[in-house]
Amino acid sequence: MIQQLVKQIEKAKAPIVVGLDPMMTFIPSHIQKKAFAEHGETLEGAAEAIWQYNKGIIDAIYDLVPAVKPQIAMYEQFGLPGLLSFQKTVNYCKEKGLIVIGDIKRGDIGSTSLAYATAHLGKIKIGTKEVSVFDEDFVTVNPYLGSDGVMPFVEECKKENKGIFVLVKTSNPSSGEFQDQLVNGVPLYEIVARKVVEWGEECTQPGSAYSNVGCVIGATYPMMAKALRELMPKQYILVPGYGAQGGTAADLVPYFNKDGLGAIVNSSRGIIAAYQMKAYEKYGETAYAEASRQAVLDMKLDIMNAIGGKQ
Amino acid sequence: MIQQLVKQIEKAKAPIVVGLDPMMTFIPSHIQKKAFAEHGETLEGAAEAIWQYNKGIIDAIYDLVPAVKPQIAMYEQFGLPGLLSFQKTVNYCKEKGLIVIGDIKRGDIGSTSLAYATAHLGKIKIGTKEVSVFDEDFVTVNPYLGSDGVMPFVEECKKENKGIFVLVKTSNPSSGEFQDQLVNGVPLYEIVARKVVEWGEECTQPGSAYSNVGCVIGATYPMMAKALRELMPKQYILVPGYGAQGGTAADLVPYFNKDGLGAIVNSSRGIIAAYQMKAYEKYGETAYAEASRQAVLDMKLDIMNAIGGKQ
Repeated sequence: MIQQLVKQIEKAKAPIVVGLDPMMTFIPSHIQKKAFAEHGETLEGAAEAIWQYNKGIIDAIYDLVPAVKPQIAMYEQFGLPGLLSFQKTVNYCKEKGLIVIGDIKRGDIGSTSLAYATAHLGKIKIGTKEVSVFDEDFVTVNPYLGSDGVMPFVEECKKENKGIFVLVKTSNPSSGEFQDQLVNGVPLYEIVARKVVEWGEECTQPGSAYSNVGCVIGATYPMMAKALRELMPKQYILVPGYGAQGGTAADLVPYFNKDGLGAIVNSSRGIIAAYQMKAYEKYGETAYAEASRQAVLDMKLDIMNAIGGKQ
Repeated sequence: MIQQLVKQIEKAKAPIVVGLDPMMTFIPSHIQKKAFAEHGETLEGAAEAIWQYNKGIIDAIYDLVPAVKPQIAMYEQFGLPGLLSFQKTVNYCKEKGLIVIGDIKRGDIGSTSLAYATAHLGKIKIGTKEVSVFDEDFVTVNPYLGSDGVMPFVEECKKENKGIFVLVKTSNPSSGEFQDQLVNGVPLYEIVARKVVEWGEECTQPGSAYSNVGCVIGATYPMMAKALRELMPKQYILVPGYGAQGGTAADLVPYFNKDGLGAIVNSSRGIIAAYQMKAYEKYGETAYAEASRQAVLDMKLDIMNAIGGKQ
């Protein structure tokens, strides 16, 4: 799966992933009104609004980017109707040729992680049948429970040719509280990174420069990224935190390898709610999707300039 | 909410929670056959089998225990129909007067954790309405992202009088890989525990011996539990790992406070799949729920003997 992602990044000339993290405050009023008129102010109404909003954005950007990253929490908060919109979004993106990174941050003891891995990457056995469930291409994984919580995901990657991104150093302000603690002079995130390399070794196709096991390192910590990049040469880095969370394009340089590859940068509200930002306010809310398209083009230029046409 | 839990533990004289973690291999064939005859070998069929199986167990044990702990992964692997069975299970348990601990182990950056906290503990705003979604009483939370990933859950606890159990030291074999790493001679799980005390201070009702912010410490690590018990006197400890994972009743003593309270011990397959164990095979699969009832009675006796009638 990582080869497919690299191929699509090279084709689009854009190491960019659009975070489909819909919040009600992002959704233009004409979409909300229509959905509430049809379904009432219910979970179904909100879920329909999310789906229509997403569809508009996907239609406007699918030819520009290699991948999307729906954050499942934003759908889970609308219950089963919300999760139906998650599933429709995953399926629609795949139909459009996009790679889907499910931002699920699951992780548990072995047997439970297996259930999550089955739900999101694999196939569940029911009687004599095998059925795909959410069926994303990649998911994010929380490593706090250790190897036996991560290995079921790795096994599913091998079986189904899928991929994962393991949280190493997250983009949020208090990520250092535990992740930066020094163990014999080595920060915990580096100890996690070393395990990621180990997990990744089992999941690298012969001849591939990259492993199906990647990692997450926030755009807000470029100094740490430099050391981690060297430590994990075969790991693709999923980089959240660009834009709204404070990471700039210049910060992104150390996340990339010398081959110009090795990182994919996420932007969520900076793209999907672009029309609410000063720079794109001329679009207005009815043309929200065009604003998103322009924001993708601008982000691409910003990043390509910063990494010096490495792509 | 923690006072309610303590009250129900005292009333039932049983510091026990039953883990409703259904796996297809646990479900008696007559239930599977009926569900597949009605819905085919589909996600709907599997989800219906899970729901009927759960209902049988809940009806057989609800008068013996204070709480249940459904593990959401076991439902998520059956997609939307599975999650509908999760929701039906939560609602049915609450109707029966049981406290529901959603074992969800969510945790993310602030805005995303807020969405999870809303989904599982709070109410989501839709237009002019506020709607409850999964509406468990407690949930488990992964602390790897630090305070800003946990605080949205704490805030929801305060707003809705609900509770959380934060992962401190999990029961699985490789939990030590990161959780036991020594930071200036102090294991990481203890650093997490100190933050749990801090988070818990904001969430303790005046006059209550216990906070709405509790923690998870596996039954498989009794030596660590002793120190952690002292460090977190106001935290209720949710203890997984008794039975199938290797924890014995004797191991449980250090998890309790001198008031005989402070811990609640989970058993999942040891109860819900009791009929498959040698000790309960006389029940056979048609009487699986009676086997579960007997297993609860035996577990209660085992634990009460070990903690010396402290309850």
